[in-house]
Amino acid sequence: MSVHVGIIMGSKSDLPIMAEAALALEELGVNYELTVVSAHRTPDRMVDYAQTARERGIKVIIAGAGGAAHLPGMVASMTSLPVIGVPIKSSNSIDGWDSVLSILQMPGGIPVATVALNGAKNAGILAASIVGAFDATIGNNLDAYKKSLKEKVEESAKEIETFGWRKALEK
Amino acid sequence: MSVHVGIIMGSKSDLPIMAEAALALEELGVNYELTVVSAHRTPDRMVDYAQTARERGIKVIIAGAGGAAHLPGMVASMTSLPVIGVPIKSSNSIDGWDSVLSILQMPGGIPVATVALNGAKNAGILAASIVGAFDATIGNNLDAYKKSLKEKVEESAKEIETFGWRKALEK
Amino acid sequence: MSVHVGIIMGSKSDLPIMAEAALALEELGVNYELTVVSAHRTPDRMVDYAQTARERGIKVIIAGAGGAAHLPGMVASMTSLPVIGVPIKSSNSIDGWDSVLSILQMPGGIPVATVALNGAKNAGILAASIVGAFDATIGNNLDAYKKSLKEKVEESAKEIETFGWRKALEK
Amino acid sequence: MSVHVGIIMGSKSDLPIMAEAALALEELGVNYELTVVSAHRTPDRMVDYAQTARERGIKVIIAGAGGAAHLPGMVASMTSLPVIGVPIKSSNSIDGWDSVLSILQMPGGIPVATVALNGAKNAGILAASIVGAFDATIGNNLDAYKKSLKEKVEESAKEIETFGWRKALEK
Amino acid sequence: MSVHVGIIMGSKSDLPIMAEAALALEELGVNYELTVVSAHRTPDRMVDYAQTARERGIKVIIAGAGGAAHLPGMVASMTSLPVIGVPIKSSNSIDGWDSVLSILQMPGGIPVATVALNGAKNAGILAASIVGAFDATIGNNLDAYKKSLKEKVEESAKEIETFGWRKALEK
Amino acid sequence: MSVHVGIIMGSKSDLPIMAEAALALEELGVNYELTVVSAHRTPDRMVDYAQTARERGIKVIIAGAGGAAHLPGMVASMTSLPVIGVPIKSSNSIDGWDSVLSILQMPGGIPVATVALNGAKNAGILAASIVGAFDATIGNNLDAYKKSLKEKVEESAKEIETFGWRKALEK
Amino acid sequence: MSVHVGIIMGSKSDLPIMAEAALALEELGVNYELTVVSAHRTPDRMVDYAQTARERGIKVIIAGAGGAAHLPGMVASMTSLPVIGVPIKSSNSIDGWDSVLSILQMPGGIPVATVALNGAKNAGILAASIVGAFDATIGNNLDAYKKSLKEKVEESAKEIETFGWRKALEK
Amino acid sequence: MSVHVGIIMGSKSDLPIMAEAALALEELGVNYELTVVSAHRTPDRMVDYAQTARERGIKVIIAGAGGAAHLPGMVASMTSLPVIGVPIKSSNSIDGWDSVLSILQMPGGIPVATVALNGAKNAGILAASIVGAFDATIGNNLDAYKKSLKEKVEESAKEIETFGWRKALEK
Repeated sequence: MSVHVGIIMGSKSDLPIMAEAALALEELGVNYELTVVSAHRTPDRMVDYAQTARERGIKVIIAGAGGAAHLPGMVASMTSLPVIGVPIKSSNSIDGWDSVLSILQMPGGIPVATVALNGAKNAGILAASIVGAFDATIGNNLDAYKKSLKEKVEESAKEIETFGWRKALEK
Repeated sequence: MSVHVGIIMGSKSDLPIMAEAALALEELGVNYELTVVSAHRTPDRMVDYAQTARERGIKVIIAGAGGAAHLPGMVASMTSLPVIGVPIKSSNSIDGWDSVLSILQMPGGIPVATVALNGAKNAGILAASIVGAFDATIGNNLDAYKKSLKEKVEESAKEIETFGWRKALEK
Repeated sequence: MSVHVGIIMGSKSDLPIMAEAALALEELGVNYELTVVSAHRTPDRMVDYAQTARERGIKVIIAGAGGAAHLPGMVASMTSLPVIGVPIKSSNSIDGWDSVLSILQMPGGIPVATVALNGAKNAGILAASIVGAFDATIGNNLDAYKKSLKEKVEESAKEIETFGWRKALEK
Repeated sequence: MSVHVGIIMGSKSDLPIMAEAALALEELGVNYELTVVSAHRTPDRMVDYAQTARERGIKVIIAGAGGAAHLPGMVASMTSLPVIGVPIKSSNSIDGWDSVLSILQMPGGIPVATVALNGAKNAGILAASIVGAFDATIGNNLDAYKKSLKEKVEESAKEIETFGWRKALEK
Repeated sequence: MSVHVGIIMGSKSDLPIMAEAALALEELGVNYELTVVSAHRTPDRMVDYAQTARERGIKVIIAGAGGAAHLPGMVASMTSLPVIGVPIKSSNSIDGWDSVLSILQMPGGIPVATVALNGAKNAGILAASIVGAFDATIGNNLDAYKKSLKEKVEESAKEIETFGWRKALEK
Repeated sequence: MSVHVGIIMGSKSDLPIMAEAALALEELGVNYELTVVSAHRTPDRMVDYAQTARERGIKVIIAGAGGAAHLPGMVASMTSLPVIGVPIKSSNSIDGWDSVLSILQMPGGIPVATVALNGAKNAGILAASIVGAFDATIGNNLDAYKKSLKEKVEESAKEIETFGWRKALEK
Repeated sequence: MSVHVGIIMGSKSDLPIMAEAALALEELGVNYELTVVSAHRTPDRMVDYAQTARERGIKVIIAGAGGAAHLPGMVASMTSLPVIGVPIKSSNSIDGWDSVLSILQMPGGIPVATVALNGAKNAGILAASIVGAFDATIGNNLDAYKKSLKEKVEESAKEIETFGWRKALEK
Repeated sequence: MSVHVGIIMGSKSDLPIMAEAALALEELGVNYELTVVSAHRTPDRMVDYAQTARERGIKVIIAGAGGAAHLPGMVASMTSLPVIGVPIKSSNSIDGWDSVLSILQMPGGIPVATVALNGAKNAGILAASIVGAFDATIGNNLDAYKKSLKEKVEESAKEIETFGWRKALEK
């Protein structure tokens, strides 16, 4: 089965966050690949990754980076595939604003689909929804996932309504 | 030819911004529909729009809104299609931070693909790149578009290098 | 005795914060109900909650949510009851700005009465003051509460003035 | 007919903004009074206003102020009535953050129901919803108002869908 | 010897911060008094404190408060004495911006001399410099204090230059 | 009569703002001097100004500067007199945050009494209140000024209450 | 004479700002070249520019860009020359924070020497100071420039002190 | 061998951060000196350091400071050498914004080459790149350093691609 989503990140230290994208894709039945590509430390590798992604069958690229986060935008500049950017809150980040703004505020012509700060899980789900728009199986998996979210809320509600919030708080 | 992208906005006053998404889709050869749907003033209409989009053949929804912008996230909660959010800087906006954060910072499970403030043009291009990942014609149109961006920069560079920046500034 | 205040929140994980609203209402003698309703994961449940609240005798709704917090505003769009919004600082929040702005900056026509970040206690007191404006008993309870706040400050002042700030600091 | 809402503001220069609260109340059939009370320039007048409001039959106070905006919070500290705060963007405001934060971030025990920056119209509607929770006529007026908001959106949508967005944009 | 500086704060919980103002005044030989006065919980006490300060011989008031911090500005509105405001970072503060802006951004006519976030020590020194401008002994104490600051820096420099930064870092 | 307040600013372009400090001092009967001293362009002149101010009889220095505003803090480091800092919003300012924070957030030991953005008028009044704490005439002028502020508010209130807000708005 | 400074910018629309860098270098006697290089639209051109700069004799690169500004950081990743970044406030910028943070907050290993928002003039002077550290003529030009800054301040001061600030304000 | 880089900081407490600049310079073979110089506590020492640096053979000054950080800008005002500013996040910093803005936003004429918050390592590398632009040995050391950064990324990538991200995460 072919790989549809490529997950890349600027540093191995981003892996604990970015692994959530991989887990979401696994749960939704989407094949992916995952590796490290740094815009600033391996620019040639980044060019190569971005320019060959389409011909290798990739449909969506998820790119995570922190601080002055250039990886998502630079990759988007070199491919016509949709690129999802995950702003990561790095250790000397100014509250995450740096990675959010350097991924979100792309100039006209080169969009990056930005998700929430450290929102790698949502990046995975968004990638699945892109694949699922053209693939009924994945689309159905997403519907099932949405249903499971709903059921968890309903269970919480039932627990609180039945036993009272004080009991629910103790658990 | 079927419609692949649905463009919605919270108010007709958002049209001057959101029209840029339509123009980008036209330039890239992607069929779209465009209307007004308000999360806060027509919640039923929003539910209906979101829940029927997929069966009507829509592949991507672009939703623009300002201030406490709930339309993109609420639509995303009711469909498994990818939703692109355009934060619009409304008249009493706190510098655009309100719409940016109320679209971007979605909770785990319900992503919105957020673009730059007032970035409707990029929303159109992003929607096209999603369609183009599965449709070679649109993909090629995007490649041609990227090439045209490159050529404009090269022309500017040539003009400045040939005639000097003072002359270029006069034009 | 009928229930006058409905407390809802987007997730059970918001309960430790939102319980303070319940405690404040209990202290002020106002009946309430409390449950979980998610704008993004249970949109139908939210519509149902909002649209039936008034006929069930509810006078005020308190809604707490974090991140891109849509629950208070969406509920406000579906009821003519006053809705109090509590911005909650979620784990990946950008310093709380996301929930504050997505609750506060509602468009013209659909107000949400916003309180401070994590200010569920104040939401409870505000709800009591709304009920108390039309119910002398609750109004008197509020007056007594205000008096107790005053007395605590006066006790602190007396302690410091009598024993000196160094002694007061040791306690 | 008795006056149910008191509108106050820190300076006559706030009147162009605060007049929108009065207009909203008129439209919704709620009686109000409107005057100038400054926390910093007429503290005695403020104390008097706040402490007598309840006995004069007022049910809700709307207070607007800019910059380091202390009027809403100080009034709230001297009455058990609900106080709605309108942050006004003054001429040397730091983008409105000053008035928003000095009204919103009240300490535990003294809530202010804060609305959006310059959101006096919403303050009027919120005050009406508080009165309307206990007065069926006002409640019905609010329902009719909400319906009119909905119809305006539907008209816009119909116009765009019928004539196309280019025509709609021209108007 | 008469008391020249009054230190007040909104809550006993502010004492660990505000004690630094007292310590600075003690070190510089300025007599002070210190107590708790809350703008929101003891408004009458605040009015009384502010209006009698001058006749009691006070020359400067230092007022500390957190969140929507109204104490310094309200006191300043009721006395012609200089008021120094100390923004305190409270537990649910939005990074301290709330107290900074609600103290700093006072409207024209009612200044508050604002110091850094949690800067009670500097508030004490500033109060001493005000007294010292008219009292040669205090002025000389300040000069001696400034000299001691200088000597500490010079010692650090000498240590690093003599033993190297690695050794200095170990200590 | 001796000069009690020295007003300095980083550039002649700051004069339209800083002139308001001079006007306030004139109105309150305080003698002052006014000139241009730049921390970055005339550091020697700044050192000389700061170190001789006290012996020349100056009691308070008002220093205004924009952007990375170092003048108030540097002057404060070289004198034991109280220094009032006026953050000025320069043409390429980031919304005034730069001058506010570079004046306000002084390290422990070297306070600057910071006023609101562009708040030169308040700097003048604050300087007068410092002089007035030790000079009964100036103190009385301040009391009269406060009374005039109060009367203006009361006039506005009377106008609105007598003729209605619509008439008042027309003027 | 060889070219020592390369000025590049992401778009011709940045030229009015970036021209100030050129003017500063001309005034200080430093040879430069100026052209347009876009990180996002001409990535290959950017790689080529960065990788050949050193061998062409360039000593410093000045790169200006707006929004999610990646040009300075990407160029810095591909050369060992010092790169000066100029954050430009683009038309849909969020108050300039986007370009400031995407240039300033570079990860460890790849510095960019960032100057103020729209601070192209200072970028030119900084580049000259780098060249001037190794070239006595340029160093002397900088000393002369600093002297001229000082003289302008002294003239302003003299004008105000001689004729009074009212006269100076009229000019 | 002569010293080319001077590292200074406002306080010995900044040493743990600023030591990273020293380590980077050692790794890249650049001679440096390091000491403590405070703008606010030892202004004379600062003047002396800045004015003699050039004649002592220094080519670049690195200055680190926190809060209202004036050291880098003041030193830059007194030398024609390039000055690199390191914003340090001090204990009562408002998220680092204070030191970032008081170093970055220098007025026209006096640039400071600003690096990321706590980015002393990058300050060291930037200083080396300035020296390396005129010294082939240092330039080559930088090329080797860049190569080592690249190799570390490639190793991480290989590890993840060979053993899978789950294994890589365990290490």
